[in-house]
Amino acid sequence: MTEDEKYMHEALHEASLAASMDEVPVGAVVVHGSRIIARAHNLAETLTDATAHAEMQAITSAANFTGGKYLPGCTLYVTVEPCPMCAGACFWAQVGRVVYGASDPKHGYSLIPQNLLHPKTKVTRGVLAAECGKLMSDFFRKKRTS
Amino acid sequence: MTEDEKYMHEALHEASLAASMDEVPVGAVVVHGSRIIARAHNLAETLTDATAHAEMQAITSAANFTGGKYLPGCTLYVTVEPCPMCAGACFWAQVGRVVYGASDPKHGYSLIPQNLLHPKTKVTRGVLAAECGKLMSDFFRKKRTS
Repeated sequence: MTEDEKYMHEALHEASLAASMDEVPVGAVVVHGSRIIARAHNLAETLTDATAHAEMQAITSAANFTGGKYLPGCTLYVTVEPCPMCAGACFWAQVGRVVYGASDPKHGYSLIPQNLLHPKTKVTRGVLAAECGKLMSDFFRKKRTS
Repeated sequence: MTEDEKYMHEALHEASLAASMDEVPVGAVVVHGSRIIARAHNLAETLTDATAHAEMQAITSAANFTGGKYLPGCTLYVTVEPCPMCAGACFWAQVGRVVYGASDPKHGYSLIPQNLLHPKTKVTRGVLAAECGKLMSDFFRKKRTS
């Protein structure tokens, strides 16, 4: 297992916690060095807040941990491609690297031709994409049939 | 004074509170009917959180007030044009109307050709633009010379 896969497994664990709360299953962790400094999952329903995406909370939590509002030395692992809001949050926080699993063909930031991330942010996509995507498709299939 | 100007004055008051805290002076209010249900200003430095824009907090606060995560019956007044992150937050919250003062030629969401707001969101721009912009330019001039 690669380092990226190891941390994506942690993000997947967060996503599964979201699923167990009937939240759209997206999870995230922020890693600095070899340490996980923030963990979060989508809480839009629980908090009655449409902006409570996993990434938003993970970024806020990581900045709280480091004591600085910029995160150039950090990697954000997230199970699903960030939306424009979350990509914009990564821009402002100057997140050093973003690693995501499944692409989001409806709301992914990469649907916008302009780069919404910070120009210095490195991106790796498709890490454990199948597992990350399966959590989402299982969730929405269950929603449609329930 | 129009209704929009009246509420933008309230957003300007929020922005001036930000300025007094040495925060980039952006303020916002959310109005439902004729009632202000949320007030917020930029707190990025105070909270050590690059995502703590006025709009993000105003949306979260308004949803908390209404008890629903969607705000189709609400108008967000903000002194400066929202960035892509905040426009994305408006999208997810389905904010009914966005009214802003000064345009943001560096970070405004309208620099992105795709509409980042919800397709049903109505937009009014330029309300008290001079006052809103002056707060910003005064702030950055002072920063440069201090």
